[in-house]
Amino acid sequence: MEEKTGTKTQGEKGEERERLEQQIRFIVEIDKVKNIFRQTYLADGKRKENDAEHSWHLAVMAVLLKEHMKEAVDVARVMTMVLIHDLVEIDAGDTYAYDDAGAKTKRERELKAADRIFGLLPEDQGRYFRELWDEFEEYQSADAKFAHLLDNFQPFLLNDASQGKSWEEHGVRKSQVCRRNERLPETSRIVWEKMLEVMDKHIEKGTLLGN
Amino acid sequence: MEEKTGTKTQGEKGEERERLEQQIRFIVEIDKVKNIFRQTYLADGKRKENDAEHSWHLAVMAVLLKEHMKEAVDVARVMTMVLIHDLVEIDAGDTYAYDDAGAKTKRERELKAADRIFGLLPEDQGRYFRELWDEFEEYQSADAKFAHLLDNFQPFLLNDASQGKSWEEHGVRKSQVCRRNERLPETSRIVWEKMLEVMDKHIEKGTLLGN
Repeated sequence: MEEKTGTKTQGEKGEERERLEQQIRFIVEIDKVKNIFRQTYLADGKRKENDAEHSWHLAVMAVLLKEHMKEAVDVARVMTMVLIHDLVEIDAGDTYAYDDAGAKTKRERELKAADRIFGLLPEDQGRYFRELWDEFEEYQSADAKFAHLLDNFQPFLLNDASQGKSWEEHGVRKSQVCRRNERLPETSRIVWEKMLEVMDKHIEKGTLLGN
Repeated sequence: MEEKTGTKTQGEKGEERERLEQQIRFIVEIDKVKNIFRQTYLADGKRKENDAEHSWHLAVMAVLLKEHMKEAVDVARVMTMVLIHDLVEIDAGDTYAYDDAGAKTKRERELKAADRIFGLLPEDQGRYFRELWDEFEEYQSADAKFAHLLDNFQPFLLNDASQGKSWEEHGVRKSQVCRRNERLPETSRIVWEKMLEVMDKHIEKGTLLGN
C-alpha cells in the first residue's frame, strides 16, 4: 500500500505534480500569442492589437452580449473557446480576414499547430481544448456561432472607433464585410443591424467602399 | 397595444438597442487596458505585458488549474472576475506589487474608477461586474482566493521564464514574495510548493534576494 500524504497517496501526488508541470509548460508557451499582431488597430488607432488582447476582449464581450443571441449558449464554454481560438497562430501566424491567398494554406498550418500546442497539456485537458477549437472551426453549434460573432464584431467595433483605419488601409469593400459576416443575421439580428448602420456611416465618410 | 416586430414589441426592441449601445460604449472604453503596462516582462523578456494580456492569461489558467484548488470554485465566475479585475486601472493606473507608497492611495483611486467604468453598462450588468470586483478585492470567497492565486502565479511564472528579470530590476526579496503570497498555501498547497521551488532556484542564481 502506498504511503499517504494528507489525503493523497505519493502516487497521486506525483501525478498531480506532473500535471502541474505540463500545465505550466503550456501556460508559458501560449505567452507567445502576445507577440502575434493582427491587422486591427486599437480603438485609439495608435498600434495594432495582438491575439491575446483580442481574445481577452472577446471573452468579456461573451458575458455581455449573450442576451442578444437567437439561440441559447453556454457562456463558460464560449469564453473558453474564444480564449484559445487563436493559439494555433503561434505556429501558423495570423491570416488577415480579406487575404484570399493566405486562406488557402491556412487550414493545414493550423491543424499541425493544434496538434503540437494542445498536445502540451495533460491528455484530458488537451482533448477538451482541441474539441472546443474544432467546434469553433466547424461553425455549426450555437456556441460556435456566438464565438464567430464575437470574433467578427470585436475588430469591427475597433475599426469603427479608429475611424475605419484598417478598412481604409486595405481598401475593404462592403460586399467583402457582408460575405465575411453572412451568418451573423442568423446568429443575432440586432448585432447585424448595428453593423449595417456602422457600415453605412463609413461608406458616407469614404473609409469603406460601398460596392 | 404596442406593435410587434417578430416576437418583440417596439418598446422591447428599443430597450434592447439601448442596452447594446451601452455595452458597445463599455467594450470600446475598456480597450484602454491594452495600454496599461505592468512591471512583468513577457516570457521572452523583450517587453513588459499589459493588463489585457495579463487578464487573458489568467482566464485560460483558471480553466486549467481549477483542479489544484483546495476549495470548490465556479470557474465561469472566476474567469469573469479575472477578465475584469484590472479595469479600474484605466483610471487608477497600475501599482507595482512591491510599491508601498503607491499602495496607500490605490484603494481610493480604484473605487472611483469602478464607479465610472462599471457605470457605463446596463444597470444589472454593471452591478454584476461590480460585485465580482468587490468580491475579488475582499479576498474572502473560494472564487476570490483562486482569482488571487492566478493573479500572483501568472507574473511569477513569467518572471521565472524571463530569468527573474523583473525581480532583479526591483531588487525583490524572497520575504516580500512570501508576504505577498501568504494566503496561497491555504488556496493550493501544490502551487505554493512549486513557487517555493522556483524561488530557491532564483536565490541560487542571484535573481531573487534570499532574505
